[in-house]
Formats: sequence, C-alpha cells, structure tokens
Amino acid sequence: MIDSVTGAPLLVASVPGISWSSIAADIKQSGAPDLSLMAIAAGASVAAVFTQNAFSAAPVHIAREHLQARNLSAASTASSAELYLLINAGNANAGTGSVGHQAALSCCDQVADATGCDRRQVLPFSTGVIGEPLPVEKFIKVVPSLCSGLEHDGWVSAAEAIMTTDTVPKGATRRIVVDGKTVTLSGICKGAGMIRPNMATMLAFLATDADIAQADLEALISVAVSESFNRITVDGDTSTNDACVLAATAYSNVSLSPSHAAWPEFSALVVDLFVELATAIIRDAEGATKFITIDVVDGLNVEECLQVGYTVAESPLVKTAFFASDANWGRILAAVGRAGVVELEVEKIKIYLDDILICANGGRDSHYREEQGMKVMAKDEINVRIDLNRGAASSRVWTSDLSLDYVHINADYRS
Amino acid sequence: MIDSVTGAPLLVASVPGISWSSIAADIKQSGAPDLSLMAIAAGASVAAVFTQNAFSAAPVHIAREHLQARNLSAASTASSAELYLLINAGNANAGTGSVGHQAALSCCDQVADATGCDRRQVLPFSTGVIGEPLPVEKFIKVVPSLCSGLEHDGWVSAAEAIMTTDTVPKGATRRIVVDGKTVTLSGICKGAGMIRPNMATMLAFLATDADIAQADLEALISVAVSESFNRITVDGDTSTNDACVLAATAYSNVSLSPSHAAWPEFSALVVDLFVELATAIIRDAEGATKFITIDVVDGLNVEECLQVGYTVAESPLVKTAFFASDANWGRILAAVGRAGVVELEVEKIKIYLDDILICANGGRDSHYREEQGMKVMAKDEINVRIDLNRGAASSRVWTSDLSLDYVHINADYRS
Repeated sequence: MIDSVTGAPLLVASVPGISWSSIAADIKQSGAPDLSLMAIAAGASVAAVFTQNAFSAAPVHIAREHLQARNLSAASTASSAELYLLINAGNANAGTGSVGHQAALSCCDQVADATGCDRRQVLPFSTGVIGEPLPVEKFIKVVPSLCSGLEHDGWVSAAEAIMTTDTVPKGATRRIVVDGKTVTLSGICKGAGMIRPNMATMLAFLATDADIAQADLEALISVAVSESFNRITVDGDTSTNDACVLAATAYSNVSLSPSHAAWPEFSALVVDLFVELATAIIRDAEGATKFITIDVVDGLNVEECLQVGYTVAESPLVKTAFFASDANWGRILAAVGRAGVVELEVEKIKIYLDDILICANGGRDSHYREEQGMKVMAKDEINVRIDLNRGAASSRVWTSDLSLDYVHINADYRS
Repeated sequence: MIDSVTGAPLLVASVPGISWSSIAADIKQSGAPDLSLMAIAAGASVAAVFTQNAFSAAPVHIAREHLQARNLSAASTASSAELYLLINAGNANAGTGSVGHQAALSCCDQVADATGCDRRQVLPFSTGVIGEPLPVEKFIKVVPSLCSGLEHDGWVSAAEAIMTTDTVPKGATRRIVVDGKTVTLSGICKGAGMIRPNMATMLAFLATDADIAQADLEALISVAVSESFNRITVDGDTSTNDACVLAATAYSNVSLSPSHAAWPEFSALVVDLFVELATAIIRDAEGATKFITIDVVDGLNVEECLQVGYTVAESPLVKTAFFASDANWGRILAAVGRAGVVELEVEKIKIYLDDILICANGGRDSHYREEQGMKVMAKDEINVRIDLNRGAASSRVWTSDLSLDYVHINADYRS
C-alpha cells in the first residue's frame, strides 16, 4: 500500500500473537471496508486508555468493563484468555442511550458466538457519526466471515477500514533487538479532528510481541499516551469515543521489565511510535495547511508549560495567523499572557519561530525583522518555542492551523 | 446619530459631572476621530476593572496605578480630584516594553499640562494594533485642542472614536427616579473579537450621576462586570488592553448605598446596562452571523455552570454548526461531556434549543424531530439551555458563531 501523501509505501509489520480481519459491512456510505477484528492471543497483557468525556459512548463503557474483568481474571488465574477487539467506522454508537448499550453488547455476542469465546473477551470500539442507532443487523450479516478471515498481515487493511474523514491511513512499526532476539512494535490509528458531522474521533491499536507484565504495560501506555495522543490538539474538542489499546503478546520470548537493561531504549521506542502515530493525526487534521510544534521550555513545572502550550495551540487567533502565514507575534504573546500562569514575568519571556527570536523584554525583539518571521511562516512545518525563563521544566504539544477549509468541513451539513 | 445596523437613533444621554471630547489625531489609518478625553468631575467615585492578561499593555499598568493613587488620596483627604481618561484607538501600545511605558506617561503629561492637573489624575487607555510604537508626536499636536473641546454631549462621538474593527458604535442609557430625583446611567464600549491584526480589544466607560461611596461602587462594578463583560466570548482570547471604568459623579444629589430601598432596583439597572453593552460586542463580533445565549441551569454551583457554558460557547465544532444552521446536538453533548464537571450524570442532562428538547437520557430525545431543530437554527438569535439537573445554580454566557468571515478577517495580513 502507498501513502497517498508522501508516495512512500506504508509498512506496518505483523506482530506475532496478533491477527486482523477487515470487511465491508455497509456501515460507511461509501461501501468501503468499515469493520475490523483484532485478535490478541491468550497469554498477552493488554492495557488501554479511554476518553475522559462524560458522554463517553456505549462501546467505551463496555470495552473498559470487559477489559477490567479479563485482567482481574488473568491476575487470579495467572493466565489470560484470548481477546477480540471489534472496531467499526461510520457510526460512533454515542449519544444512543440504553439502546446503544444493548446494540454494542449484541455485537460482542456475535463475535463470542462465532469464535466460541465469552462475551467479556470481546471489546467493542466505534467511530463515526454521533447519535445514530448502530445498525446491528449489518453486523450479523458479516461477523462470521470477519471472524474466519483473521490473518497476521492485516494491519494495513485495518488502518484503512477504521478511517472516517481521515484522508490517509496511519500506521508505523519499530523494531529493537534484545538479548539477541528481535522485538516488534506496530500500531495503527485514526483521527482528523472531532469532525464532520461529529466523528467520534481517535482510535489507536498497538501491539508488541515482547513479554511485559500487566502493571508495567499499564505504566508504559500511561507515559506514552501522555507524551503523544494527549499532546495533540486540532480544535480542543475531546471526543466521546477516544481509545488507545496496547497489547504485549510475549510471542518473541523476550521478557522486558523496568529492571531490564534494554528497558530505557525499548520504552523510548514505544513513546517514539506513539508520537509518530499521534502526529500523523495532526498532519491529517481537518483543513490543516501547517504542522506546528509548540515547545514551552524553562517553566517551573510541566503543568504550567502545558497550560501555555495548549492556550497558544488552541487560540483561534494564533491558528488563523498560521493559516495566513502571518508572523503575528502579538497573538502568540497575548495567548501566553492569558494562559493563567501565576506570577509570570513577561519581561523574561522569549518567543522563537524556529531559530528566530521574535519576542524579548515584553515586546518585539530589537533585532527581529519582519522578513525573518515571514520566511519561517511560509514553511509547512513550524516550531514555536516559548522560553518562560523561570525553571527547568518543559513540554511539547502539536497542533494545526485554523483554515477556511476547517470551517467548510465542519459547517457542511450532515449528509 | 443613527445605528447603521438597526437604523434606530443611538441615544446616549449625558451624565451631569461627565464631559467628553474627541478628535482625529491621525492614529487610525482612515483619518477618522481616534482620540477621546473623558473628564470626571472632582468628588466622583471611580472604580475600574482591567485585563487579567499577564502581557497587559503599558496604559493598563499606568491607569491601574494612577487610579489607585487617586483613590488612596481621596480616602485620606475625604475629597477626590478631577480625573481625565485619555483613550486612543488604532494603536494598543501593547508589547512595546519600557518605551511604550514612557510613551503612555508622556501622553498623560500632555493632558496634565493642558488642564493644569497632576499626571496621576490622567488614566491612559489604548486599543488597536499590538506591538507598534505609540506615535507620541501625534498626541502632542492635538491634545491642547482635545482638552479645550470638552462638552457634556460627547458620548456618541466618543463611542465612534474608540471603534477599531467594530462596525457600529455601542452605547446605551438607563434612568431611574429615586427620592423624586432622576438618576442617569450611561455607557459606551468597543470590541468585536481580539481581532485584525491584534486589536487589543474591549474598552467600556460608564458613568452615573448618583452619589455612591467608593467601596460600594467597587462592589457594584465587580458584580456588573462578572454578569456582563465576563460572560461574553467570541474566541476565548482575552486581550492585553481590556478595561472597564464606572464613575459616580454625585451630581444628581441622590445618595445611594446598599441600605437604600432603591438599591436593588438601581443595581439591577446597572447590571442591565452592562449586559446591553456587553452583548452589543457579541452582536458585532467578527464575522458573526448568529447571537447565541447559553444558559446552564440546575448545576451544583455557578462555577460548574460557567465551565459547561464556556466549553460549549468556545467549541469550534459547536460554533461552526451554528454558522451552518445545523442542529448538531451531538457536538453540544460532546462539549458538555468534556467540560470537566465531576461526577456528571449524563442520563439526567437535558439540552434545549429555544423551547425544543433535543437531548435527554444520554442521547437524542425520543420526541425530537430534526425539522424542529432546523427551524430554531435558522434564526439569528438562538438560546441553548443545558439543564444539569443536579442542583440549583445557573449561569448565562453569550457567544457568536465561527464563520468563514471570522477566518477571512483574522487571516488577513496586517496592512
């Protein structure tokens, strides 16, 4: 498969212990594949994080509950059962009340029947339009074929099947040699804004064949998500369906834990893969013409750095200035100023566009020339660095610009 | 003067003890009047609130300091001196460092020289482009004429002179009879978003001829601002120059305090005037095609009601749906869900568009029909009511939609 943006082949290596199947269930209006099944072998550790949205969708509630039950049972029996992730695109099954809850359970039952497992070994995930009933009858028609079509090389097909308004499938792989054996780490994700009309948005599925204990895997996904999917913002809207799953199948026979010498390198690789997938969402953000990295450095703590980073990243005025390729430093400065950081000394703050110092001493730097800023702003990828100059903490967030196309896309009536 | 939108005369009654003068100082590129002086008679109580932005502009710092000095001196001498408010549009004198501070002080000195008062009896206010040096030489040419042109009927001319990208001047008056005497309350304001390229935005000047003690006036402005200017949001961007001043000249010889029987009616009238001016800013918001009132009711406390109200009001997805006249209740529901309210029970929440119940029991209300929502959304003024159904607190915020014109206006390069 070819990445339609870069023209490069999109390679997602298979992961021993993981298989995938994808099929067209007629949920997407286009008739394209829209239903995927991820099978995780027995014995795997599986960790997940879900949306914080109080209106989280029915599948989110059920997936969380089933995973907890499976992991509790694994802890008491010292062995974990096979797990199936059933993922549909085109309908979010969100804002659907108790009917939606029953619908998601019914889909789990279909997979349980076809594979001979317990309902609680099936986690449902949905992404697509909010508020429409999930068409359970369409699942019934295809779930048996879906379950019989599992194959190890199905990652890329799944990356395509879970797309909604994404314009490109998103996936990547990392490899590391530990104790002379190769460990593979692969992942796919989807998301492009919360989107038309309300796609309920980000899903990510990752797996490694390393052997990692449940507690260590949970710590790892927590760190990795906080450095990746929790550091991107298109429009500040958190969806009702966001979920990220990380499985460790143990099929490589490489056991990894924080006490292993290779752990730092491995966990850095995990974060790296998460970041590649997360930033792929920003690169494919609705209407985006720019990819913007915002580094806030030398803050008192990470919280205040994030506060400043998000305020700048989500300011409609800053975002429209990026769309206009306008080095409008006054908007960045005003956003920093209203971020709510206590006792901020504005005279100490420095703001850079790429390597160009634009603000110092509370205003435009005396050496800064407009042409320098315009040259940076003309680029497709821009780094904004905000030096708070009052501590040693730093954080990074990624965002996109606010374009006319963003409004066009989101103002289109649901069709 | 005629309001260019409604065609109705814009009437702002003069307030005994207040005079105004406005003049063209060539700060605005258009050559229109751009410099105003408000003279507040000796003996008046004056209270003000200023932007919370850490990058607040030089004039904000000086105005705050001079007003504090004057009020401290008034408290110790039991009499207050005349006060002059010097307001320019076209240049915000923000992000201008120590040079900007000196420039603002120099302008105060010019007024002090022309009127024979102390520098600290002059409060400077600026609105317009951020980051450009304040053209002090242009002030020098006109300040003497400005100071000699003070007249009681200058409110409307001042409302025009302080405009930047506002499309209409904004002003209003209220009257009340207390103890057989008429008390007048007038105000003007400007603001339309934080705007092209970074207009530094909202200014409001109000005065009454009631006799109100300093402490009571400060309590009054605090309540009135929190119910009006602090309840409007165009794009969530707080400017570097926001300021609101309320003067009480005592010229009506009507003494009012919280113990007076007329106080509840009077203070309600003050809030009413503040709300009229604040909502006039939303009606004139950049690119706005809709005026949206968001009521969050039956919350545990006002804070969580505001949290929900602002999250909905500032969601780009909700705002573009309003622009599209799309009754996209899923976006409102998702914004409520991510507002961060603790232990929100989504099944209990009801969401209304005007009088139409659209969401209940965690999803679309079973009686709701799409045509009903579309009919409400086709209107220019829309009320969104979110019933949290878990307490007795409520709050209201006003906002505008996110239109293609908003992006056009804010993506225009600074010219």
